[in-house]
Amino acid sequence: MIYFDNAATSFPKAPGVAESISKFILNDSVNSGRSSYPASQRTARLLFDTRDKLAELLNIEDSSGIIFTANATESLNTVIFGTLNSGDFVLTSKMEHNSVMRPLRYLESINTIKLLQFNSKKDYSFDLEDYKQKLKMNPKLVIVTACSNVTGAIYPFYEMAKLAKQNGALFCLDASQYIGMDEIDVENSEIDFLCFSGHKGLLGPMGTGAFYIREGLDIRSFRYGGTGSKSDKEFQPDFLPDKFESGTMNLTGISGLNAALDFIQKTKIKNIRNKKKTLLNFLINELKKIKNIELYSPLDIEHQIGVLSFIPKNLNISNLTRILDKKDIAVRMGLHCAPSAHKIIGSFSKGGTIRISPGFFTTENEVEELIKVLRNNT
Amino acid sequence: MIYFDNAATSFPKAPGVAESISKFILNDSVNSGRSSYPASQRTARLLFDTRDKLAELLNIEDSSGIIFTANATESLNTVIFGTLNSGDFVLTSKMEHNSVMRPLRYLESINTIKLLQFNSKKDYSFDLEDYKQKLKMNPKLVIVTACSNVTGAIYPFYEMAKLAKQNGALFCLDASQYIGMDEIDVENSEIDFLCFSGHKGLLGPMGTGAFYIREGLDIRSFRYGGTGSKSDKEFQPDFLPDKFESGTMNLTGISGLNAALDFIQKTKIKNIRNKKKTLLNFLINELKKIKNIELYSPLDIEHQIGVLSFIPKNLNISNLTRILDKKDIAVRMGLHCAPSAHKIIGSFSKGGTIRISPGFFTTENEVEELIKVLRNNT
Repeated sequence: MIYFDNAATSFPKAPGVAESISKFILNDSVNSGRSSYPASQRTARLLFDTRDKLAELLNIEDSSGIIFTANATESLNTVIFGTLNSGDFVLTSKMEHNSVMRPLRYLESINTIKLLQFNSKKDYSFDLEDYKQKLKMNPKLVIVTACSNVTGAIYPFYEMAKLAKQNGALFCLDASQYIGMDEIDVENSEIDFLCFSGHKGLLGPMGTGAFYIREGLDIRSFRYGGTGSKSDKEFQPDFLPDKFESGTMNLTGISGLNAALDFIQKTKIKNIRNKKKTLLNFLINELKKIKNIELYSPLDIEHQIGVLSFIPKNLNISNLTRILDKKDIAVRMGLHCAPSAHKIIGSFSKGGTIRISPGFFTTENEVEELIKVLRNNT
Repeated sequence: MIYFDNAATSFPKAPGVAESISKFILNDSVNSGRSSYPASQRTARLLFDTRDKLAELLNIEDSSGIIFTANATESLNTVIFGTLNSGDFVLTSKMEHNSVMRPLRYLESINTIKLLQFNSKKDYSFDLEDYKQKLKMNPKLVIVTACSNVTGAIYPFYEMAKLAKQNGALFCLDASQYIGMDEIDVENSEIDFLCFSGHKGLLGPMGTGAFYIREGLDIRSFRYGGTGSKSDKEFQPDFLPDKFESGTMNLTGISGLNAALDFIQKTKIKNIRNKKKTLLNFLINELKKIKNIELYSPLDIEHQIGVLSFIPKNLNISNLTRILDKKDIAVRMGLHCAPSAHKIIGSFSKGGTIRISPGFFTTENEVEELIKVLRNNT
């Protein structure tokens, strides 16, 4: 398989992930934080250690503000449902994934919230003037993606967080597509909530995700149950991370994520970004040479995370995807769970785009293979 | 390690679980249901196949009523929050885990529901007369555990489900401690919701759980987001399982659960139960011989799933647990996230019990090792 679907999940995973999980299952796969025997203490340390590695990667001072979830969708739902109350205004972009839009549209449909959306521009960037205007309507929460999962466009989220804070709004960043691709500095930003998955840029296993909540912020929990703490009480503990982490943790996945974070730490985010830039340059240049392909993504790699959307001019996207499927070249076709984004960039009526998302392990040879098939079939 | 903490999570896992996950990570770890390339189709089949194996195990006709979750706690929260509305009565026992009690107590604290609890009897059974009386108060939902995670007592859940139905109540069974230990027949019962974990009796990896929802029942979703279906809409699809399964699935864990279900299917639940009964008989007889140990569990194995609680008469539970920890004999001490249960059986004021929960792979030799330490230290 030649894999260009890293925006869905990374493949291959970081070296060591499979081995780490396998060892964990065979030797140490017991519950954490519930008991005092040695293996249980080791899994409690695994949990603590993985939280710490995430905190270090994201420059977060207190790792107990990092909550493990099943995926970024659960992270986003927890922040959205935990923060918003009846009558609240929420501000978001028109480029969001359904993991943001579906919970918001649900809350809008039951008349809990009023949803505001700011515009995007033709060059794939956000309309920051419109953003500033909408901020004046005093949203309680601003929620935006760090980069588009359709076009790869990187958004100025530090600046947007600062503007949100100046207007008294909480700022939630959906970093699902961004984390592991480039640096994120939480402490030196005005980000209040950071939601992300562990299986995309972090190169960890599917089934892992997390969110960060800034110290002092008090939001409702989303799931209540056993935490191994305050077990004499039938009420949820109110301290972090226990408030949000009920039931047996996905220690299987976390043992894999831990190994992936070791790899990320060793490789360094800066090098990951630079390697991707080189490959992106090559990929973009090759794609530009194919005359029957229309790109729907910013091509300046400083504003491009590594997700390219295109539509062939002379056949429909399904037919071209079928050809790629047969060659075992993995791309994703369609709306990528972000219908509004396609309306903005003009690809909705065409059924969406074909999305190419190379990963850290993608080679120039693999790009050449892809280009060859695209050139011969468009 | 000699492992007697299977009620927290099973260890070791079923043969094949580690290998299945490792192979999945290395060869096939791509997203399902989002794309059409061969590996993505294989993971979609893995998901479908695991759902089907669960349906077969539980005698469920339509496997699309089985929803994967991160753990039984998430399953229970989804059913509880999805079902209950302002003013509803809920009936439960006094033997429930905090995964049931904490969401219910939360809903009670915000005046959404009125919580009713029926009594237990001195012999560790439920007071069915009291249950019938409380049913007359027309609860919308009855939620009970199939067996106690503290005493191992098995409850007459088929009969209770029938009584609930006769009174127009929905019946939710918490099978977290029961599944994989003995047969469950959903089709021929009045169970409306079945919540369970994949990592206890099913011998799968931590991070897996599920619930079943009877066809035709319409409850609110608990998490909204991308499903790979109806991607042109910013509203959650209303069909199963997509309504409840948003975001990237834990295919890592599910690949392990699939292998565990193969083992369960091959071994057969009946044989698992019989093997456990033989071991339990041996364990109970040996425990009874130790005069300084007081058992807090039903000892008739027909009413005992395989979880035994005890308190040493001549030292406190922490000190004895510390001795067991040092010998690398894994038990769990305390309230086991079920404070009310300890109030009922009389162990709350003593800080709870020491819980012994053997598993499918526990040997008589291991029981002898445990008994030796208990005999020498009490």
